[in-house]
Amino acid sequence: MELGICYYPEHWPREQWPVDAQRMRDMNIRWVRIAEFAWSRIEPSPGVFEWEWLDQAIDTLHAQGLKVVMCTPTATPPKWLVDQMPDMLAVDAQGHTRGFGSRRHYCFSHAGYQAQSQRITRAVAERYGNHPAVAAWQTDNEYGCHNTAISYSSAAAEGFRTWLAGRYGDARELNRAWGTVFWSQEIRNFDEIDLPNLTVTEANPSHRLDFQRYSSWAVARFQEAQYQLLKALSPGRPVSHNYMGFYTEFNHHEVSENLDIATWDSYPLGFTQDFFLSPQEKVQYARTGHPDVPAFHHDLYRGMCASVRADAPAHGRWWVMEQQPGPVNWAQWNLAPHDGMVRLWTWQAFAHGAEVVSYFRWRQAPFAQEQMHTGLNRPDFSLDQGGVEAAQVGEELAELCHTMCASKLSVRNRVALVFDYDGLWMGQIQPQGKDYNGLALAFRLYSALRQLGLDIDIVGPNAPLSAYQLIVLPVSTHVSPALLEQLKNTTAQLVFAPRAGSKTTDMHVPPQLAPGPLQSLLGLRVNRVASLPPGFEEVGHLLDQATTVTGWFEDLALHGAHKLATLSDGRPLVTLNDRACYVAGGLDDAAWQRLLESRALAAGLEPQRLPADLRVSRLGALAMAFNFSDKAIDWSPVGSTSEPLLGEPSVAARGLSIWHLV
Amino acid sequence: MELGICYYPEHWPREQWPVDAQRMRDMNIRWVRIAEFAWSRIEPSPGVFEWEWLDQAIDTLHAQGLKVVMCTPTATPPKWLVDQMPDMLAVDAQGHTRGFGSRRHYCFSHAGYQAQSQRITRAVAERYGNHPAVAAWQTDNEYGCHNTAISYSSAAAEGFRTWLAGRYGDARELNRAWGTVFWSQEIRNFDEIDLPNLTVTEANPSHRLDFQRYSSWAVARFQEAQYQLLKALSPGRPVSHNYMGFYTEFNHHEVSENLDIATWDSYPLGFTQDFFLSPQEKVQYARTGHPDVPAFHHDLYRGMCASVRADAPAHGRWWVMEQQPGPVNWAQWNLAPHDGMVRLWTWQAFAHGAEVVSYFRWRQAPFAQEQMHTGLNRPDFSLDQGGVEAAQVGEELAELCHTMCASKLSVRNRVALVFDYDGLWMGQIQPQGKDYNGLALAFRLYSALRQLGLDIDIVGPNAPLSAYQLIVLPVSTHVSPALLEQLKNTTAQLVFAPRAGSKTTDMHVPPQLAPGPLQSLLGLRVNRVASLPPGFEEVGHLLDQATTVTGWFEDLALHGAHKLATLSDGRPLVTLNDRACYVAGGLDDAAWQRLLESRALAAGLEPQRLPADLRVSRLGALAMAFNFSDKAIDWSPVGSTSEPLLGEPSVAARGLSIWHLV
Amino acid sequence: MELGICYYPEHWPREQWPVDAQRMRDMNIRWVRIAEFAWSRIEPSPGVFEWEWLDQAIDTLHAQGLKVVMCTPTATPPKWLVDQMPDMLAVDAQGHTRGFGSRRHYCFSHAGYQAQSQRITRAVAERYGNHPAVAAWQTDNEYGCHNTAISYSSAAAEGFRTWLAGRYGDARELNRAWGTVFWSQEIRNFDEIDLPNLTVTEANPSHRLDFQRYSSWAVARFQEAQYQLLKALSPGRPVSHNYMGFYTEFNHHEVSENLDIATWDSYPLGFTQDFFLSPQEKVQYARTGHPDVPAFHHDLYRGMCASVRADAPAHGRWWVMEQQPGPVNWAQWNLAPHDGMVRLWTWQAFAHGAEVVSYFRWRQAPFAQEQMHTGLNRPDFSLDQGGVEAAQVGEELAELCHTMCASKLSVRNRVALVFDYDGLWMGQIQPQGKDYNGLALAFRLYSALRQLGLDIDIVGPNAPLSAYQLIVLPVSTHVSPALLEQLKNTTAQLVFAPRAGSKTTDMHVPPQLAPGPLQSLLGLRVNRVASLPPGFEEVGHLLDQATTVTGWFEDLALHGAHKLATLSDGRPLVTLNDRACYVAGGLDDAAWQRLLESRALAAGLEPQRLPADLRVSRLGALAMAFNFSDKAIDWSPVGSTSEPLLGEPSVAARGLSIWHLV
Repeated sequence: MELGICYYPEHWPREQWPVDAQRMRDMNIRWVRIAEFAWSRIEPSPGVFEWEWLDQAIDTLHAQGLKVVMCTPTATPPKWLVDQMPDMLAVDAQGHTRGFGSRRHYCFSHAGYQAQSQRITRAVAERYGNHPAVAAWQTDNEYGCHNTAISYSSAAAEGFRTWLAGRYGDARELNRAWGTVFWSQEIRNFDEIDLPNLTVTEANPSHRLDFQRYSSWAVARFQEAQYQLLKALSPGRPVSHNYMGFYTEFNHHEVSENLDIATWDSYPLGFTQDFFLSPQEKVQYARTGHPDVPAFHHDLYRGMCASVRADAPAHGRWWVMEQQPGPVNWAQWNLAPHDGMVRLWTWQAFAHGAEVVSYFRWRQAPFAQEQMHTGLNRPDFSLDQGGVEAAQVGEELAELCHTMCASKLSVRNRVALVFDYDGLWMGQIQPQGKDYNGLALAFRLYSALRQLGLDIDIVGPNAPLSAYQLIVLPVSTHVSPALLEQLKNTTAQLVFAPRAGSKTTDMHVPPQLAPGPLQSLLGLRVNRVASLPPGFEEVGHLLDQATTVTGWFEDLALHGAHKLATLSDGRPLVTLNDRACYVAGGLDDAAWQRLLESRALAAGLEPQRLPADLRVSRLGALAMAFNFSDKAIDWSPVGSTSEPLLGEPSVAARGLSIWHLV
Repeated sequence: MELGICYYPEHWPREQWPVDAQRMRDMNIRWVRIAEFAWSRIEPSPGVFEWEWLDQAIDTLHAQGLKVVMCTPTATPPKWLVDQMPDMLAVDAQGHTRGFGSRRHYCFSHAGYQAQSQRITRAVAERYGNHPAVAAWQTDNEYGCHNTAISYSSAAAEGFRTWLAGRYGDARELNRAWGTVFWSQEIRNFDEIDLPNLTVTEANPSHRLDFQRYSSWAVARFQEAQYQLLKALSPGRPVSHNYMGFYTEFNHHEVSENLDIATWDSYPLGFTQDFFLSPQEKVQYARTGHPDVPAFHHDLYRGMCASVRADAPAHGRWWVMEQQPGPVNWAQWNLAPHDGMVRLWTWQAFAHGAEVVSYFRWRQAPFAQEQMHTGLNRPDFSLDQGGVEAAQVGEELAELCHTMCASKLSVRNRVALVFDYDGLWMGQIQPQGKDYNGLALAFRLYSALRQLGLDIDIVGPNAPLSAYQLIVLPVSTHVSPALLEQLKNTTAQLVFAPRAGSKTTDMHVPPQLAPGPLQSLLGLRVNRVASLPPGFEEVGHLLDQATTVTGWFEDLALHGAHKLATLSDGRPLVTLNDRACYVAGGLDDAAWQRLLESRALAAGLEPQRLPADLRVSRLGALAMAFNFSDKAIDWSPVGSTSEPLLGEPSVAARGLSIWHLV
Repeated sequence: MELGICYYPEHWPREQWPVDAQRMRDMNIRWVRIAEFAWSRIEPSPGVFEWEWLDQAIDTLHAQGLKVVMCTPTATPPKWLVDQMPDMLAVDAQGHTRGFGSRRHYCFSHAGYQAQSQRITRAVAERYGNHPAVAAWQTDNEYGCHNTAISYSSAAAEGFRTWLAGRYGDARELNRAWGTVFWSQEIRNFDEIDLPNLTVTEANPSHRLDFQRYSSWAVARFQEAQYQLLKALSPGRPVSHNYMGFYTEFNHHEVSENLDIATWDSYPLGFTQDFFLSPQEKVQYARTGHPDVPAFHHDLYRGMCASVRADAPAHGRWWVMEQQPGPVNWAQWNLAPHDGMVRLWTWQAFAHGAEVVSYFRWRQAPFAQEQMHTGLNRPDFSLDQGGVEAAQVGEELAELCHTMCASKLSVRNRVALVFDYDGLWMGQIQPQGKDYNGLALAFRLYSALRQLGLDIDIVGPNAPLSAYQLIVLPVSTHVSPALLEQLKNTTAQLVFAPRAGSKTTDMHVPPQLAPGPLQSLLGLRVNRVASLPPGFEEVGHLLDQATTVTGWFEDLALHGAHKLATLSDGRPLVTLNDRACYVAGGLDDAAWQRLLESRALAAGLEPQRLPADLRVSRLGALAMAFNFSDKAIDWSPVGSTSEPLLGEPSVAARGLSIWHLV
C-alpha cells in the first residue's frame, strides 16, 4: 500500500521542482506519474527532441527516492503532427471531424498515427527505459475519454472492412451473421460495407455490434503496440494504463491482455453527478459520492490483469492512478467532498486491494481547461484539504505498515459478478425500452450485495468461476459454450438478470428462444418480452413482501423451474431451478436485496444487512469498515476480539476503522 | 372481411414454406403480402435477376389457395444500386446524406432512382402481373417512414425550382406569393431559390409550405409512375399502398389519387407510446392502446380512395395491411398487448369497414433490426399469443360469414371531420405557441365524438359534404372557395376550431383578417391571437359548466354571432352564428364533449355518452361494441331485440359484442 | 420625450403612404424609422439602384413633418450578392454554412462583405445624408440577432489569427496566455491556430475567450466603418443602432464607442417567456412582462453612449427603437399584453430617460416570417389595441409637455451596477455548475434593488464611479487595475457577488487565488469553490433570518473581513471588510433584498420596500410609479405635496402616476 501523485513539472518553474519533490517525500508519497501530455515539450518540432528538461525533472524526483511512472504522450499529439496528416483526426457519428484544440484528437484506426504512436513511444522508452527512477509505465491516457474509442473516419471504415474480412472470410457468411436478407442489406463483397452511422433509421444491430467489437479491437492493438515496445526497451518495468469510471465503449478485458497493471481514475463525486444515479442519490451523496461507485470499479479493475488462478481468479495488479483530491471541473455540478472523504476513499481503495493510490494532481493548474480542478495543493502553493488528508494517510500507512505488511493481504472473495462488455453493447444497441441500462443494473446488483456485507469479484465472461459460491450475471446477454460449461459445473448459486442468454454471439434471437443455451439450466423459456414505460408498474410478491416491477417484464414458460416470486396475477417473476435463479422483470432495490440475501444464504455465505451508508471489506486478516454517513456507526466485524488498528470501535462519520482479525 | 398476413419466404428455409402455407390456410388466412423488401434477392447484381425462389414461393402459396399481394421492392434499393449513383440518397435538414444500411435510403426527387423504381416495377410486374395467385399489388412500403418524404438534396432543389416555375410562371408572382419584399428575400429568377433548410433563422413560411407541397407532389409522382405500370401490366388487380399512423409529411389525399385501395399499418401500442398522448394516457392505455388511435386512422384511410358519391363520400376501399400482433420493437417502450387485444383490434377494423386485416408478420425474425418485433409465430416456430387470437378471429369470421354477408355492410355516417394536410402544415410551420399540434387537436375532437357514440367520416377538404348533418373542422387553416361554397350550401351544423380560415392559400393573413372567407358564415372577426404558456389558464363557462382555457385564445369581434361560451371577463369563447359554431380557445376535453354533444343534438343526431373505454360502431345492419377496459360493461344498441351474434350482452373486458339489427 | 414608429413603405401600396403619414402625425408620432431591410428594393440587381420609391416615401413622411431615421440595409444582403460571394455566409459551430433565406446571413469577418457594407452605406448616405427629413441614422439591425455575432468561417479563422498576432506579437506570449503547455496545445506560429469549435472536448478557455473578444471586435469594426461614413456624409445627424434584450454575444460597451445614440428593442413579454425567468414568473408576468425586464435594459443602454462625466456617468443618449405593440410571433408562447401595458411600457421608458419610444411596427405585415407579429394597426388597416394606447400616450405627452419640459429631467442615480461582458463570458465559458448564469444573477440583483425603490445606473467596468454611494458588482469576474483603483478610492458601499476577481485578464486563476486583486479590499481569500446541484441546499443565516444557499458556495479564509452571514456550521457566507461586502454563495431572493437594503442604508440611501409589482422612478423633479399588478396600489412619493400630474394618487392597475416634486 503506497501513495502516488500525478505531477506536471512542465507547468511550473524549474526552481519549484526540488521543493515539490521534497514535500512529496515528506508526505510519504512514493510514486510520481509524469509526462503523459508532454509531447509538444518533448518534441516541439518534427524530429527535434528536447530531453533536457525531462531529464532534470526525473533526476530531481529520483534524488528524493521517488519512483516514476513514465508515460507515453500519445493522448495529445502536437499541432504540427495533426497538420502533417489531418486525416488522423477522429470523425464523430454526424460525420464531423473532431479537431485539434483539446486532447485525444486521433483515430485508433489511422495507420499513420499508429506509426507515430510507436515512434514516440520508442523515443521515450529508449531515453528512459533503463533509468533507475523509472519503475513503471503508463500508456497514453484514458483510452476512449470523450467518446473517442469510436471513430467514423475513412481509416476506421477501411480497418473495419479488413477486420470483417478476417472475421467472416466470405461475404456470404457475413450476410448470414448479420441477417442482411432483411431489408435487402446484402453485400457482395466486403468493400460494400459502410460504417453504421448516418443511416436513415437504425443500422443493423449485428453491424453495430461488430463495429463496436472492431473499435475495441483497434484500441487493443494500439495498446499492444506500445506494450511490446515498452516491454522490450524497459525490461522489468510493469506497464499500466489508466481506465475510467462507468465507461464501456471498449472491452477492457480485451485491452488488458497487454497490460501488467490495470489502473483507474477515481472521481466519486463527478461519477455520482454525471451518471445514472437518481436525483435523490445525486443530492444525498453529493459530497461523499455514492459508497459503491469507487468500490464497483476497484473490484472491476482488480479483475483485469488477473492471472488465471482458479483460487483467486480476480486478484490482478491494480492501482488508483488518479484519485479525486477535492472539487473537480468537469461534472455537471462540482461539489467539495466533505472533510475526510479523500482519506476515506484512499483507504477504501486499499481495502479492495489497491497497490497504489495516486492523487490527481499535485497542484491545481491556474490555466487552461482544468484550472478549476483542485489538487493536493492550491495554485498559490498552499496545501489544500486533499493534501492534508493525503498526508494523514501517509502517516497512517507508515504507522500501520508493520502490522499490515505482516498480514497476508490477499483478496479471496466468494461472490462473483460477471461483467460482459459484449452483453452490455447488445443492450445498448437494442435497449427495447428507452431507459434500459445494463451498466446501471450491474451497479445496482453490486450495490445490493455490498449492502449485505459481501465482498465481490467482478469478472469477465471467460474467468474461472470454480472459486465462487454465488455468481450473479446482470448483463450476460450472450452466454458462450465455455461459460455455460462453467455454470453447469460449478456448485455455486446462480442469479441471472433479465435478458440472460437472449442473444447469440451474432446478436440473433436464439433458435430455441431466450434464455438460449441456459434453458435447461434455468428450466424455462422466455415467451414474450415487454419494456414498461415510466409510471407503469406491476405488483409482484417476493419472499413475503411486495415489490414493484418496473421497466421490464418477461412472460416465462416454466419446464422445471419453480416460482420464487410472482406477479399479482400469478405469472412467474423470479424462478429457481435447482441452484439457478432467473429474474424476469425489473425489481425494486429492496426486492433485489431480499433475493440476493436469500441466494447468499443458500450459498452458505453469511450476508448481513449493514447499517445505511456503512460498507465493509475483508482483506486478508484485515476487516475494514467505511462510514459514508454523517453520524458515527457502531459496528465491529464478527470475530474481532480487540480494538481496531485504526479508528474507533464506533466508526466515525465519514471515517473508517480497521481491525486485525486473528 | 378477410384476414391476411405479411410473409417473408426469403427469411426461412424453403422446406418451411409449404408448412407455413398450410398453417396459414388452416387459420383462415386468405391474403399473403410478400417481397416488399426483397430487391437484393430478386436482383442480386445489376441486371441479374433470380426469379426462381420467388416463383416457388408464390406457387407454394397458390397451392393453398392463398391470394398474394405482390409488392414493388423500391423501399430498399440494394447496395450495388446506391454505389452506382450515390446522389440518389436523401439529405437531411442538417445537410447530412442519409446513407445505406437500413431502409428508405432514396430521394423521391432523384431522376435516376425514379427510373430505377420504374425498371424494377416493370420487371416484377412483367413476371407476376398475370400470375393467378397475384390478386393485388402494394407499391413500395410506408412512404415517408423515418421522415423520408422530405429530402434536402440537390435533386430536391432542382425539382423544387422546376415545380415552382410551373406553379408561379414568373419570379414576380413568387415574390408576391411569398412576400419576399420582407427582409429583402426577393429573387430575380427561379434559379435563385434555395431549399428552406440551414437558414440563419426560420425560413419564409410560404417557402416552407411550398417545399412541403412540392415534396408531397414528388411522392405522388413516384406513386403514379408505379401505379400506371402496374395497371398496364397486371390488369384487373387493385393497387394498394400501406400508409402509416399519425404521419402527415405528405398529403395522403394527393397520393391516393393513384391508388385503388388505401391500406395502413396499425400499431396501437406503439402509437400510444410515441406520440402526443399525455403521460397518464400512455400508462392507462399502455397495454390496450388508446381506443381511438386505430379508429381515427381507419376512418381517415377509408376516406382516401372514396369514389366521389355524395351519399357515401368516405366509403373507399381500405385494409389494415399490417396489424400489430404483440410487442413491437420500435416504440420508446414496447409492451405486450393484453390478451384479447389482437382479436379486438381486428374486429374493430372490420367494424370501421376494412376489407382485409393483415397481420405483421407471420413469424418473428430472429435477426436484424426487427428481431424484437413479434409475429403470429415465435422464431422457434411456436404459435404466439397473436396467432392464437388471429386463429380465433378466423373461426369467428367463418362462423358469422353467413349472417354478415347477408347484411349490407355499407358505411353511412352523418358526421364528418375535415382533415386538411395543407392546414396542418401551416400550423406546423408557424405554430405561434410551442406546443400547438393540429393533429393532436383533430384527434381530440375525433375522440370526443367517438365517446358520444357517433360514427365519423374523416374527409379531405375537397370531399362532398352534403351527406352530413354535423361537420367538424379542426385544422381548416385555409378554406378554399369550393369548400366555402359547400359549407354555405349544406344544412349541417358546423364546428370550427381556432385558426379556421386564418390563412390564405399562400399562407398570408387574409386581407379581412381571420377567419378570412368564413367571416360572414361565422359572423365574427378575429382581432387578436394569443398562445398561452403551460400553467397559464383562463376560466371559461360553457353550457353551465366551467372549462379551463389553455394553449390558445383569440379575441373576437362579433358581428352577428352570439356567445355560446365566455371567459370570466365576458369575452366570447365559443360563438354560434345560425348553424356555424366557432371555438376561439383551447377547451378542456369535457368542454369539447359538451359542445360537440350540443351541436350533434342540434343536428338531429342522437349522441349518447358511452361508458368509459367503450366504443361502438354501426356497420350496415350490424352494431358492434368494443370494451377497452378491464371490466365487463353492460351495453346494448338502441333497437336491439335479440342476443348478440358474437359476444355477450354484457361486453366482455377487452372484448366485443356484435348485434344484428333488423 | 417623443414617439416614433417603424415603417415599411415597401410593404404597402404607394397610395397608402400619405394616409399612413397623416395618421402618424395625428397620433403625435414624430419619428419614422425606415429601410433597414430594403436592400433588394434599393438595389434589385448589382449596381442598379432604384431610389425613386424611397425618395417618394421620405418625401411623403417629410410632408407631414415626420423625422426619418434612415437605416443602412446591411442586415439583409440580397440573394444576388450572396451568389456573388457565397463564402460571405456565416458558419455555425457545427461547421454548417448558415444560408440565405431569412436575415443576418453574413459573417462580420468577411472582407468582401465589409466592402459591400461600406458600398451600400455610402450609396444610401450619399443619396439621403443631407435630406432635410433625415434626422438620424440606424446602422444595420440588431447586430448578433439569431446568434450571428460568432461565425466559424474561414474568414473568421483568418481574421482571428491576424487579431491574435496583433494582440500577442509572439506565439510564445500566446502560449503563455492560454497555458497551452497543458495538453500539448502549444503552437509555433499564429497560422497553427484553429477556431475553438469541433474540438474533441472543450477547447482551451482562454482560446474561447479570445475568440469571443475577437468576434466582438469584428462587430465593432463593422459598426465603426458604417459610422465613419455616415458621420462624413450626413453631418449633424446622430447615428444609432438597435441593440437587443438579454443578449451578450458581443461587448456592447465596445461597439458603442462608435455610436451617438444607443437604442434597443423592447419586447417585455417575449423576453419574459424565452429567457431565464422561473416557470412561476413566466405565468405570473405572462401578460405584463416582468416589471424589471424593460427597466434593466433601459438602464443598461442608457449607460452605453454616456459622455464620461463624473457627476452623471451613465446618462447617455438612448431610445427604445422597437417597442412591443401587442402579441409577437417569435417567443415560445406569445400572449397578448393586458390592456394598458403598451402605454405603461412607453411611460416606463421615459421614466428611465428615453428620448424616444418607437413602436414596432406601424402595421402588421400579412406575409412572411413576421406575419403573426402585431403592429399599431392590423393588416386590415384597423387600429389595434397598441395603436389605441400609443395614441393615448401621444395625447398625454402633448398635454404634459409644458410641465415636463420646464423640469430638468436629468438622470442622477446613486446606485451603480457594474456590468462586464468579459466577466460574463468567463462565466459562460467555464460555468463550473451547469446552471450558472451571470446574466440572470445581474438581473436578480438589479430587480432586488428596484424593489427597494432605488434608481440604478448600469455601467461598464471602465465607467467613472465616484458619483455613487452603492456599487454592486454581480459579474466582475476579472477586475482591472483601473477598476480596482476606483473601488479603493470611492467611499461607496461595495457588494461583490461570487467569482468577483476570480480570474486574470487571460482567464487564469490569479496567483494569489480569488478574489485576486480584491483580496486586501475584501479581507479574504477564496480557498475552495463548489457548485451545488438542484435539490442540494445549505441553510444560512443573514440579518436574523434564514436563507437557503443554492447553486454555489465558496470556502473563505478571512483576514480582516467579518461575517455578515454564516452557514449553519459557521462558515462565512457574507462578509464585510470596512465598506466592501462579499457574498460567497447563492442566496435566495429575500436574502439578497435584505442584504442590499442593509448596504443601501449603510450608504446613506433611503431604500423602501415597495408593494409587490410596483416600481418607482425619479427623473429630475418627476417621480413616477408604475403598477404591474391587477389592483390599484396606494403609493405616493416622499415629499409630494400635490396631486399627480398624470394618474391618480392610488396608482391604477397596469397604470401609472406621475408627480412633480418641488
